[in-house]
Amino acid sequence: MSIVMKPSASKDQVTEVVKMIRSSGLKVDVSSGQFQTVIGIIGDEKKINFDQVKSMPGVYDAIQIQVPYRLMSRTYIRQNVSVKVKGITIGEENEPVYMAGPCSIESYEQLYRIGKSVKEAGAHILRGGAYKPRTSVHSFQGLGLAGLKHLQNVGKDLDIPTVTEVRSEVDVKAVAKYADVIQIGTRNMYNQDLIEAAAREEKPILFKRNFSAQIDEYLSFAERIIANGNKKIILCERGISPLGGSFKNQTRFTLDLNAVPVLRKETPFPIIVDPSHGTGRKDLILPMSRAAIASGAHGLMIEVHDRPHDALSDANQSIQPGQLVEIIKMCNLIYKTISESEAPFSSDLNGNGHS
Amino acid sequence: MSIVMKPSASKDQVTEVVKMIRSSGLKVDVSSGQFQTVIGIIGDEKKINFDQVKSMPGVYDAIQIQVPYRLMSRTYIRQNVSVKVKGITIGEENEPVYMAGPCSIESYEQLYRIGKSVKEAGAHILRGGAYKPRTSVHSFQGLGLAGLKHLQNVGKDLDIPTVTEVRSEVDVKAVAKYADVIQIGTRNMYNQDLIEAAAREEKPILFKRNFSAQIDEYLSFAERIIANGNKKIILCERGISPLGGSFKNQTRFTLDLNAVPVLRKETPFPIIVDPSHGTGRKDLILPMSRAAIASGAHGLMIEVHDRPHDALSDANQSIQPGQLVEIIKMCNLIYKTISESEAPFSSDLNGNGHS
Amino acid sequence: MSIVMKPSASKDQVTEVVKMIRSSGLKVDVSSGQFQTVIGIIGDEKKINFDQVKSMPGVYDAIQIQVPYRLMSRTYIRQNVSVKVKGITIGEENEPVYMAGPCSIESYEQLYRIGKSVKEAGAHILRGGAYKPRTSVHSFQGLGLAGLKHLQNVGKDLDIPTVTEVRSEVDVKAVAKYADVIQIGTRNMYNQDLIEAAAREEKPILFKRNFSAQIDEYLSFAERIIANGNKKIILCERGISPLGGSFKNQTRFTLDLNAVPVLRKETPFPIIVDPSHGTGRKDLILPMSRAAIASGAHGLMIEVHDRPHDALSDANQSIQPGQLVEIIKMCNLIYKTISESEAPFSSDLNGNGHS
Amino acid sequence: MSIVMKPSASKDQVTEVVKMIRSSGLKVDVSSGQFQTVIGIIGDEKKINFDQVKSMPGVYDAIQIQVPYRLMSRTYIRQNVSVKVKGITIGEENEPVYMAGPCSIESYEQLYRIGKSVKEAGAHILRGGAYKPRTSVHSFQGLGLAGLKHLQNVGKDLDIPTVTEVRSEVDVKAVAKYADVIQIGTRNMYNQDLIEAAAREEKPILFKRNFSAQIDEYLSFAERIIANGNKKIILCERGISPLGGSFKNQTRFTLDLNAVPVLRKETPFPIIVDPSHGTGRKDLILPMSRAAIASGAHGLMIEVHDRPHDALSDANQSIQPGQLVEIIKMCNLIYKTISESEAPFSSDLNGNGHS
Repeated sequence: MSIVMKPSASKDQVTEVVKMIRSSGLKVDVSSGQFQTVIGIIGDEKKINFDQVKSMPGVYDAIQIQVPYRLMSRTYIRQNVSVKVKGITIGEENEPVYMAGPCSIESYEQLYRIGKSVKEAGAHILRGGAYKPRTSVHSFQGLGLAGLKHLQNVGKDLDIPTVTEVRSEVDVKAVAKYADVIQIGTRNMYNQDLIEAAAREEKPILFKRNFSAQIDEYLSFAERIIANGNKKIILCERGISPLGGSFKNQTRFTLDLNAVPVLRKETPFPIIVDPSHGTGRKDLILPMSRAAIASGAHGLMIEVHDRPHDALSDANQSIQPGQLVEIIKMCNLIYKTISESEAPFSSDLNGNGHS
Repeated sequence: MSIVMKPSASKDQVTEVVKMIRSSGLKVDVSSGQFQTVIGIIGDEKKINFDQVKSMPGVYDAIQIQVPYRLMSRTYIRQNVSVKVKGITIGEENEPVYMAGPCSIESYEQLYRIGKSVKEAGAHILRGGAYKPRTSVHSFQGLGLAGLKHLQNVGKDLDIPTVTEVRSEVDVKAVAKYADVIQIGTRNMYNQDLIEAAAREEKPILFKRNFSAQIDEYLSFAERIIANGNKKIILCERGISPLGGSFKNQTRFTLDLNAVPVLRKETPFPIIVDPSHGTGRKDLILPMSRAAIASGAHGLMIEVHDRPHDALSDANQSIQPGQLVEIIKMCNLIYKTISESEAPFSSDLNGNGHS
Repeated sequence: MSIVMKPSASKDQVTEVVKMIRSSGLKVDVSSGQFQTVIGIIGDEKKINFDQVKSMPGVYDAIQIQVPYRLMSRTYIRQNVSVKVKGITIGEENEPVYMAGPCSIESYEQLYRIGKSVKEAGAHILRGGAYKPRTSVHSFQGLGLAGLKHLQNVGKDLDIPTVTEVRSEVDVKAVAKYADVIQIGTRNMYNQDLIEAAAREEKPILFKRNFSAQIDEYLSFAERIIANGNKKIILCERGISPLGGSFKNQTRFTLDLNAVPVLRKETPFPIIVDPSHGTGRKDLILPMSRAAIASGAHGLMIEVHDRPHDALSDANQSIQPGQLVEIIKMCNLIYKTISESEAPFSSDLNGNGHS
Repeated sequence: MSIVMKPSASKDQVTEVVKMIRSSGLKVDVSSGQFQTVIGIIGDEKKINFDQVKSMPGVYDAIQIQVPYRLMSRTYIRQNVSVKVKGITIGEENEPVYMAGPCSIESYEQLYRIGKSVKEAGAHILRGGAYKPRTSVHSFQGLGLAGLKHLQNVGKDLDIPTVTEVRSEVDVKAVAKYADVIQIGTRNMYNQDLIEAAAREEKPILFKRNFSAQIDEYLSFAERIIANGNKKIILCERGISPLGGSFKNQTRFTLDLNAVPVLRKETPFPIIVDPSHGTGRKDLILPMSRAAIASGAHGLMIEVHDRPHDALSDANQSIQPGQLVEIIKMCNLIYKTISESEAPFSSDLNGNGHS
């Protein structure tokens, strides 16, 4: 339920509504916009008497939200949401934001060297993994805390914001301390306790779709971030499980660009695309990056390594810094072409809807 | 195996090689290029003595082809292949080609009316179904032969080439007679006898990928067209089965744009994209069309109906002619932006390959 | 719609109802049971006035059928259907039926030799492919008509009924002439014209599920058989596409035994299981055969070859005749254990249904 | 690598090998069997000189293990492993073990009432959820610690061992304290930190397959349990994501019984099957339970609720205690039939392997 207060509603009237909801054992999300306040409900709405709410002083309307991701929906938040990371703004009406860097942080030197080159190539945010989710217990699992410290130092030294994945609840506070954006990886999209712990740190969350999640399921788990009081959510499509069968898959995952316009319709939060994990092939990064931006993505996350043969992980999908230059140039060109046309991205939200 | 003759090889030397292969019970494909002749083998190559072939007079080299789709591979055909449909050329170095029209042909009047509007919108080829593949035996199955005749008449009256699906082997000759391009639909991608019968008609074939086929499997079935002597092949990505699960799918299928750059790498034949069936949602046609062209597609196939509420099939995914104008304009703009840039589409084929 | 006539309804009253339906351009299926006649409608039922039908003389009731496979549903056909193939009966209240034989027919001698051994092992029906559906145009495609003749001759000489796949509409009449059961393979489940052509031959049809078809979709295509006047339908689960991903699949397909009890609930026709194609591994045939019978299957189809190293196709999944003996013994034991228990197979249809 | 010591090897010789491995920064698993000791390596084996190990005193052989799940493989552990939970033994040569109980623990009374009825029905272990993994943040999330206490109390009062899911690393110690078996649910199969934390508690782990995991991936994550020193592993197949498409799925998941014989071949640990989550339909529990046991499962986990209409979760898939009686009777009958036959379950491991 979305409780829309009148523009003239007093603070006390808002407080009364909030009190009433809390008295039913539910939690609230209060969004104070420029013109009016909207109140969202966290928990089982059936405990609330819909008609009673509607008749309370100061209430303009109470709207049932049909989708399971109530607070993430455009019915609840009416304007596009941008997420600020230091000086960078990700989201609507802004040029695409590029996050780039190595799969794994291997040393301060390696990260500085690659970080410098991706910044020069035009990237806005430096990525690098300290806690690596790995299938095999026998493989390199990341540098851990030492990696986090390299990330923070390189970020400072190059003056570039940073993003890194948190894998364990135990490390949430450390990651929040050392990085500017906390990433929840594809394998943890269903890990509700990790999501909630990360959300409570009040830092921006880069929330990746699980490789086998439907859009509705994905947004329902993103809802846990906002239900914990954090609206700095960056969504990320990173490839879904490919079709199986007796033939080999040409790509490691199937980058699902349908997700971009679908997510833009459903939610006001920004969406970025990760073509590196999404395809697993460095020769597909350029064409799929072009396509991602053309589909409406607000940015890209790309794995870059200057010495792929030495990389401790994901060598096959990492591009060289020189290729990043080319990708960013081309994607900005496509972004400009579309946003300056007669049918800019914003027009995708109108038109003949999904009925 | 690809047998490359010397530029100086005589006709007789080519004939000798062909004779030798045929004497092993195999068939051949002879490609006479500007500079040299290349001979492909159809059938079980193990029957051929590789070293013996290499030592024959006039033979420059004999190359083993690792992929199962030998004749479709870039190892066998070295240049990009364009397909001509009347005055229209589909493929490399040409602007995108747009195929548009109603899902089903309902009458001459309906087809003429929609055909006129899509031609005016900039479409190059008129689509319309006479033999409809339908799940239910209880639904409308298409006008059949009467539909084919409407298609031919409207094509002539509007001076626009036409494409329509053939579903049954029994109807192959009729479709070849009345339409300019023969479509093999997604449900018939595994129907080897239909493919071969259609191929033998010597008309261009629009060959759609099955919704659960891997790329290698798809190209292996396309191989049957060329093995029957027909090189006028237009490939078409039209959406794969979405992930299942307890959540509803937001799209009917998952349009797989990864297929576009992968197919461009593997084969020299043109690739078009069908966002109408690929998404099943008219509000996604514009963003996914932009993305398809940006990924490198040589054209689009789009369902258009001017009175969707009256359409006998696929009403949810058909756009209005006015929207087609917008899509074509935008896609041409993106095509131009990329092809005139420092990194045009052709550069996708170079660079760091898939190792 | 299922129109149930009164037990007392006269022939003329049935004729009047049929006439009325046909006058709306629809076709009918008339089922004359021991006690009463039921009439099914083939085509778009919305053309029929439901209330008018109900009020016609001799009509006991007219029932709306909610599922898209109206004639295949248990709402339309109330008793279990058995299919007779020469002396063999497949279906409810009968011991499991075993179909076995080589993937491909290679010669009269090969088929006779294997046929003799599978008959001695307890198999009831001999399988063998003459027209092989193959991914590659370069592979062995089956002996064709010569194979059909071997099948007929071996069937006669060993006094065992036969089943073989038809792949092309062109060969339907030949297959119907030489074999006792016509198989529609997994790749042709969506080939509506082939299904209908085969159905019209009035022979039993072994109709395999496509590896990516939902149950409702599968039954909707089976509906085309009955809509063409043929009720000798044997359904067959043969494995669905496995999950994809970066890990290799342990099995070629995923044999979906859930399909067995689901199909038994939905339709009165017999269901057999093919663990050979369903798993692609000979070492899984025994445990999955046990499980198939325990899940409620009415029979099994198993690939057997006595010299797997010489087999022209499917060597990895073919078992030896000696293993077939063991499988049949074990499966009969399980069948007996369950059918003589306090909770025999028939009780699966009662109980707490799927609401 | 599996280092097999000679039967005559001294303790010191074992210690020397262990020391050598540890000196390369790796960890070891030492398995002291009745006749000989086997040493497994945890970490990157390339750091070890294979030939050097082979030549050490007391070493009989050093065997390369080809699969990524080295310690879980039958190459490393040669005998079947049974897992003991209080008086109950799960695994080879034992009758099937039944785990049953409500989806969610709602109160001491509810759990006692249902626990009593499942014990009387023949169940060996009581299941009940205290920390519920839920898609929606707005739904009931389980009673948490209070639920754990009810579980412990009911377990004691009814003298039945208990199993419950741990969802968060934070709760691992509490779950280990109050329950007899720690369950890692399907959504946490990729949660390596939770798996490792749970493993270190030294209690039996019920480890469920993720709904989109391949078998090799599943065993690679189970490997993390053994790499943390815990060999009390119970594997559990609980359904994989069904095929998607435009048709509705008849089942919520696809119970994948192929996994049972495949897992039995690959690993010596016991495998149980959860038909409740695997199908999501209570009317399929009986037939799929029969099939699971026939496929070789060592037990079943079944959701039971005596008042499904009041259940706080999973009402559609919970059966009544009376139905559990029937299922257990039938499954024991099938188990007995097979294990007393000429081809008992153990023979599945021999025969023509997967080459």
